[in-house]
Amino acid sequence: KVMWTVLVTILGYASSLPVGDDSLCTAEELAKYRIIFTGKWSQTAFPKQYPLYRPPAQWSSLLGVTHSSDYSMWKKNEYASNGVRDFAEKGEAWALMKEIEEAGEKIQSVHGIFSAPAISSGTGQTSTELEAHPRHPLVSFVVRIVPSPDWFVGIDSLNLCDGDHWMDEVSVDLFPYDAGTDSGFTFSSPNFATIPQDTVTEITCSSPSHPANSFYYPKLKILPPIAQVTMVKLKKSQPGLSAPFINLPAKSNEVIDPVS
Amino acid sequence: KVMWTVLVTILGYASSLPVGDDSLCTAEELAKYRIIFTGKWSQTAFPKQYPLYRPPAQWSSLLGVTHSSDYSMWKKNEYASNGVRDFAEKGEAWALMKEIEEAGEKIQSVHGIFSAPAISSGTGQTSTELEAHPRHPLVSFVVRIVPSPDWFVGIDSLNLCDGDHWMDEVSVDLFPYDAGTDSGFTFSSPNFATIPQDTVTEITCSSPSHPANSFYYPKLKILPPIAQVTMVKLKKSQPGLSAPFINLPAKSNEVIDPVS
Repeated sequence: KVMWTVLVTILGYASSLPVGDDSLCTAEELAKYRIIFTGKWSQTAFPKQYPLYRPPAQWSSLLGVTHSSDYSMWKKNEYASNGVRDFAEKGEAWALMKEIEEAGEKIQSVHGIFSAPAISSGTGQTSTELEAHPRHPLVSFVVRIVPSPDWFVGIDSLNLCDGDHWMDEVSVDLFPYDAGTDSGFTFSSPNFATIPQDTVTEITCSSPSHPANSFYYPKLKILPPIAQVTMVKLKKSQPGLSAPFINLPAKSNEVIDPVS
Repeated sequence: KVMWTVLVTILGYASSLPVGDDSLCTAEELAKYRIIFTGKWSQTAFPKQYPLYRPPAQWSSLLGVTHSSDYSMWKKNEYASNGVRDFAEKGEAWALMKEIEEAGEKIQSVHGIFSAPAISSGTGQTSTELEAHPRHPLVSFVVRIVPSPDWFVGIDSLNLCDGDHWMDEVSVDLFPYDAGTDSGFTFSSPNFATIPQDTVTEITCSSPSHPANSFYYPKLKILPPIAQVTMVKLKKSQPGLSAPFINLPAKSNEVIDPVS
């Protein structure tokens, strides 16, 4: 599996041709989106070991990138990069920003980086603007679950381009992932490095299959979404703010339905 | 003092004319800058009560805005807005983003919002890109000091425009401020609302003049800078990354000197 990944990566680099579905984007130049991240990590939905103190349940900064299929920020069942490890374990963004920078410089596989402020509670919202390019129509991002050993939510290579046009709105439910770098079982587990490193895995209500796990809910079929992300295409040349909001509520923990 | 501020603000709104030094900017349209925030909050420089655990010393997300003099994010000796209070006390950015959004919509006093990821230690760096406009050449931002009652560092209305051109590079040492909304004395003080609210004040080595204060160093003349910010103008149409880095070090806690 690993060898195959390396091979595909090398071929991708060597040919300098886009691999994957981003090669089909013939949309007009550049699209701006507002991205809205909504935390749904409430004590009601996730009562088990819900972190109330030092620190209470919250979300890290959101760090994202628009890119081509020559770059991958993270991928299920593959090994996390050092940058993703630092971010998932500690919320430290620097190494990941450097990785993205290098991918942008060396193989022009990155259009831009974006970030949104942290959310100081489990339920709440944050938002920023991103720009996609026909040759870099994919969006990836990560948000660390705080506190946790190395758990995060995110999106891997979502294509905002649909043939000859940009999608107007995309909304995705998010579920927790384990970066495979820390063996802690619960939100507040002490640091305990996973050696050798494991791959990125989705955490479900039955996996890891151990009653001590914070997301182990044997009576559920699937976990409720712990977060949601919505990307809304912005009209060109909106007056005033260059990064307009879309009538967001006054408080981040009010319910909004961006579709309505 | 307060009445005078209100009056100036009303006049500024009513006349719809820019007030202050941003009216003099005749530079070419739009300038992009990379902003690099460097935390210098080390145990060596600030040994007193240096927070080591739950949480250790760190910095929140950076939230900033480019604007005209019709908008003010925060100002020394004036009252913090509710948004700045939420951000300084809890790192919660939403209300402040809404305030900025409203200033952008109602009086077109805002060009854009930007944010950079949090830093998970007292010393370290974060970075993002910002865009300034001749009618919105001022930069303001805030970063919360974590842990703290309501302390932050930031910049208030720094003008990136110098007459007919944009500044190539600006670097500023940063010192701690008290948002005036929580009466805690030390980094880890419990919440204790200041009623009535006080104005934003600079925290120095002698003020508040109380030995319990975390920044009280009676033997010093001035505090060392607790952080630094550098803004570097980006060349137009750089290839690859739309938000290029400027040869940042591999690790955020390596020493860099952006001037060299």
